[in-house]
Amino acid sequence: MTKNSANLRVRLPALIFALEVMIIVLYAVFVTYDDHTNALLQTNMTKPMENAVYQDYPFFADIQMMIFIGFGCLLSFFQRYGFGGMVFNFLTATFAIQWAILIQGFFHFYYDGKIHLGVINLINAEFACAVVLISFGAVLGKTSPVQLLIMALLEVPVFGVAEWIVVKYLKINDAGGSILIHVFACYFGLGVTFILYRPSLNDGHSKECTSYQSDMLSVLGTLFLWVFWPSFNCALTLRGDDQHRAILHTFIGLSASTLTAFALSAMLNKNGKLSMADVQNVTLAGGVTVGASVDMMITPAAAYALGMLGCTACMLGYKYLSPFLARRLRVQDQCGIHNLHGLTGLISTVAAICDPQLAELQELIPGLKAGLGRTAKEQALYQLAALGSTIALAAVGGMLTGLLLKLPYLASPSDEFCFDDELFFNVPADYNQYVGAVHYTIVNHPCVSTPKDVE
Amino acid sequence: MTKNSANLRVRLPALIFALEVMIIVLYAVFVTYDDHTNALLQTNMTKPMENAVYQDYPFFADIQMMIFIGFGCLLSFFQRYGFGGMVFNFLTATFAIQWAILIQGFFHFYYDGKIHLGVINLINAEFACAVVLISFGAVLGKTSPVQLLIMALLEVPVFGVAEWIVVKYLKINDAGGSILIHVFACYFGLGVTFILYRPSLNDGHSKECTSYQSDMLSVLGTLFLWVFWPSFNCALTLRGDDQHRAILHTFIGLSASTLTAFALSAMLNKNGKLSMADVQNVTLAGGVTVGASVDMMITPAAAYALGMLGCTACMLGYKYLSPFLARRLRVQDQCGIHNLHGLTGLISTVAAICDPQLAELQELIPGLKAGLGRTAKEQALYQLAALGSTIALAAVGGMLTGLLLKLPYLASPSDEFCFDDELFFNVPADYNQYVGAVHYTIVNHPCVSTPKDVE
Amino acid sequence: MTKNSANLRVRLPALIFALEVMIIVLYAVFVTYDDHTNALLQTNMTKPMENAVYQDYPFFADIQMMIFIGFGCLLSFFQRYGFGGMVFNFLTATFAIQWAILIQGFFHFYYDGKIHLGVINLINAEFACAVVLISFGAVLGKTSPVQLLIMALLEVPVFGVAEWIVVKYLKINDAGGSILIHVFACYFGLGVTFILYRPSLNDGHSKECTSYQSDMLSVLGTLFLWVFWPSFNCALTLRGDDQHRAILHTFIGLSASTLTAFALSAMLNKNGKLSMADVQNVTLAGGVTVGASVDMMITPAAAYALGMLGCTACMLGYKYLSPFLARRLRVQDQCGIHNLHGLTGLISTVAAICDPQLAELQELIPGLKAGLGRTAKEQALYQLAALGSTIALAAVGGMLTGLLLKLPYLASPSDEFCFDDELFFNVPADYNQYVGAVHYTIVNHPCVSTPKDVE
Repeated sequence: MTKNSANLRVRLPALIFALEVMIIVLYAVFVTYDDHTNALLQTNMTKPMENAVYQDYPFFADIQMMIFIGFGCLLSFFQRYGFGGMVFNFLTATFAIQWAILIQGFFHFYYDGKIHLGVINLINAEFACAVVLISFGAVLGKTSPVQLLIMALLEVPVFGVAEWIVVKYLKINDAGGSILIHVFACYFGLGVTFILYRPSLNDGHSKECTSYQSDMLSVLGTLFLWVFWPSFNCALTLRGDDQHRAILHTFIGLSASTLTAFALSAMLNKNGKLSMADVQNVTLAGGVTVGASVDMMITPAAAYALGMLGCTACMLGYKYLSPFLARRLRVQDQCGIHNLHGLTGLISTVAAICDPQLAELQELIPGLKAGLGRTAKEQALYQLAALGSTIALAAVGGMLTGLLLKLPYLASPSDEFCFDDELFFNVPADYNQYVGAVHYTIVNHPCVSTPKDVE
Repeated sequence: MTKNSANLRVRLPALIFALEVMIIVLYAVFVTYDDHTNALLQTNMTKPMENAVYQDYPFFADIQMMIFIGFGCLLSFFQRYGFGGMVFNFLTATFAIQWAILIQGFFHFYYDGKIHLGVINLINAEFACAVVLISFGAVLGKTSPVQLLIMALLEVPVFGVAEWIVVKYLKINDAGGSILIHVFACYFGLGVTFILYRPSLNDGHSKECTSYQSDMLSVLGTLFLWVFWPSFNCALTLRGDDQHRAILHTFIGLSASTLTAFALSAMLNKNGKLSMADVQNVTLAGGVTVGASVDMMITPAAAYALGMLGCTACMLGYKYLSPFLARRLRVQDQCGIHNLHGLTGLISTVAAICDPQLAELQELIPGLKAGLGRTAKEQALYQLAALGSTIALAAVGGMLTGLLLKLPYLASPSDEFCFDDELFFNVPADYNQYVGAVHYTIVNHPCVSTPKDVE
Repeated sequence: MTKNSANLRVRLPALIFALEVMIIVLYAVFVTYDDHTNALLQTNMTKPMENAVYQDYPFFADIQMMIFIGFGCLLSFFQRYGFGGMVFNFLTATFAIQWAILIQGFFHFYYDGKIHLGVINLINAEFACAVVLISFGAVLGKTSPVQLLIMALLEVPVFGVAEWIVVKYLKINDAGGSILIHVFACYFGLGVTFILYRPSLNDGHSKECTSYQSDMLSVLGTLFLWVFWPSFNCALTLRGDDQHRAILHTFIGLSASTLTAFALSAMLNKNGKLSMADVQNVTLAGGVTVGASVDMMITPAAAYALGMLGCTACMLGYKYLSPFLARRLRVQDQCGIHNLHGLTGLISTVAAICDPQLAELQELIPGLKAGLGRTAKEQALYQLAALGSTIALAAVGGMLTGLLLKLPYLASPSDEFCFDDELFFNVPADYNQYVGAVHYTIVNHPCVSTPKDVE
């Protein structure tokens, strides 16, 4: 009964084919090559090695690794939901990028009646995709692939609007996307999960558990994200020293948050032991915290301090805020995205505003960032406006999306089949045997390392 | 008894040392540095940063990831044959590259009595290696490392001849290697497996099964292949806009086939559930289908359509053609390479021939691809000739290789020990315990996600 | 009791916070941007694309993959110590890089009262980090995270001194770091483990065992190291043809050692079967052996021979030398670093000295490497002096570090809890169930594939 309502045979193909028809028609009508991909625009004077592909492709490839391998592995931390975590990530990401090429195309790459396409569009689309995947973290294991595709379908355009407001209209500093990507993704995801609230899950769920192998795979995902995060934060900064600093600061911020995460994990978990959930998540906080000022002259020591600060906020969030949100505010944030992306994004925004060295620098070098003719104070107000409008747009967009996802026929899993691959996959023979044995164990030993159980 | 005939103690070292002596002697006699690696050819005027290594090495590294990590993980999908999948891939790939450096060297990089070596040779050798690994997919789990090395020893030279015919003599469009690499590899592999036919395997094999962990690892391999496939398809295209388009089209083609694969998997598998075998294989079809025209001005929408088309053919192949081939034509294609590389390669070839936009373009820009002085129709005939001669050469070469692999003393596994790591590896203590338990389960629940069982 | 002494709640945070305060203060006082990261030093004439980041970042990223993914997976080969292998590698590497930025900064990048920071410093710091991680291999599973951080704290400065002596003072050829990195790391690690000798471990340990999944993950780590090793060996060579040759030779050396490793593994292991420990370790020997002469005109055939030679020495070392060292000389070398890094490093050093072609070349091209005004014989003596001083410094430094690590309160694991994640991690529920079952098996079947058991 419950299982039948999650049968994908008609629902998923119907939705996917509809989306594909939409995409291919819009591509056919609107998408053409840009100056660097159009053979007709190359002349005898064109130097092939100056094609933009050689600047953009390495960063594109690095971010692909983060999205498909890094996120994919990281989201596979549930013992019985490894297929779901890795494979729905694959599906959702693929569609989100296709769709973002169109949405962002209309906003940023549209002229002469066409969207002009090169690898640079793909990088932009990957950022929109990262937004969707972060939001996905809030509802991991509780949504069907049909729902995830619809979420991507709605989130990408709302993000497109936010991006337009923040980048084109308010013109704020946010090289690493701390406001635009992390804060937006967080509050959109929280909006969705707020509407999809499942009271029974607050009492714990027998399948909401990691296994030894799933923890290993998940931390491997963390390492991929960690290694390529500098590429993420610098891909859209100015070429040259700006990009160079973005790489340095991201590395330093991540390093600092990693050390801090180990310290806090041992300090705050039971028996003075480390928790894999902390290693998987909290170590990454520094990558977000340095984001908004990642290309500025903030000094290496400040990047280090931002990493420590972000990590501490993230860790305390997992420990105290997430349980509170789940119990009191109906916000069941499965992967704790509010800690890793929300709190850290807020810190990053404030840091970019307050940075005294920046204000100082701006006086020293009149040209620097002053093309906008704003004083440091004015710029701070713009940053705050960007933050506010991003949060508002994201939260409202997320909640409306959540309402839509409650419609029938979207194959939403019943409470019992949350975090369970058997619902949507033909699982191998060892799945039931293996899980049966472990299930028995779980009854006696509550599982210890899912994010929600850090407390 | 059966096990003794698979003892590698003498066979494998004897073969490997013989191969190594051959390689090192030929390297010593024939291989020298090319213009970009020879210190004696650098002058005061040489600009180090213009060395070809900076153009070639990033693509080389990406393809290394595909070959050693991507293929390695993908081929580890059997529950009891993870070591074999990943490790024999490692061994075979390593030897194939060494050997291809020599074979292709004589065909393409030979002058002044020497083969001239740089990273560009390694990229070419990686393509030859990919050919061998694709063919390996047809006989996975049914061959010894001794047989695999001999297969590589024979396949690389035959491929070298095909490459010479297609690239140097027929001069066809095949930037992504759809004809040369995928079609050749497919029919060579099918030729081998046709000769190595094992009637008993058509009734299913208790070990021909995936496990939860092996499915995870295999899909991780898919993701590595997916992420780096643009580098594979563009590595040997012209620098500049051609290479840029190749990246775009590959990405779009893969995206389209991925979405389509999820739709068809839910539609065609039992209970309306997704099959991991489809996610592992069918998602990749688009990368092959765009291959032959990957650098042309085919439009993004056409790349999308090619991805959908290739994916559909591949999926239907797994469902209907593979069982037919196994039962009626004695072709036991273990990984379904005929679906993922054969059918898609054929589609790609036809697409490159029929592309109306290309014909149109060729009239618009007289210089484009017209250095050969061929009309679109003539070129189409050349493409067909290339396809035909590739298939013929591959199939005959494969069958002859298969005959050789049936010689005694090559440690061919008995039917019982197919798909079983215990035959060639000292396995850890948990191997038997773990497998014993699962074996019991398999008796009752036929396994659901190996390619052959998609039906 | 035993477990309480390994409680990390106070020890680990106290140490980490102390280290972080030290780092951030030193960064604040001493670390500033270098010419390529300082915005104030860019002028209207600066071409952004000529920033050093575009030369250095790709190599940096590749080496990050080796350190965090490659080493992390490789060191996860113990069945019950996967978390420890991968996660302590993460922790130790992160701190080692932070610390090496300062230490090497004072030695190599210090002027105008400041350490000047760019991605090039990070590459250098990654090499220092690799040194620490190799040494870590000697004591894997027998040390607490507190001890590992202290080891990194001490090893990095000693390495800094060795680096200064070898590179700045003796000016030897060691592009791939065979002497400086591999030999140093090996003898430092052996020095530590000599002091930390645990007699009871010589009789084997019930947890010193691999599992099927841990062996798979570990060989995946090997493949990452294998794929990116050319980047490691060439990152600090001269741009242009030198770097190009370094890539070629590393690839060829690794290929040769991989083939050889398979041959020797089948030849020397019981039942003529392959051992995963050999595939995980011995295949990599060629990467070290070509190191000291990796950028020279040694010829491809010589690189091949070096790979075969290094692999053979490494394999024989695992089989005969490691057991001898453990039983007679109290050197319990957990991962066999003496075979993979020590013996191979020695061979590489000798090869770089003896290379007749180099001597010949030096006469042909007076400018080549002759800026030092040394004859080939003099240079050989300098190389030997470098080797000797490196070994002496490393061994003494390692032993003194070992003595420090025996101090109380460092959470050193008891013999019983060596190789056991439960000591330092909150493990998931399936850990005990799974391990309980396997433990039972181990009693009857001694485990077969940890390095120490190759014999």
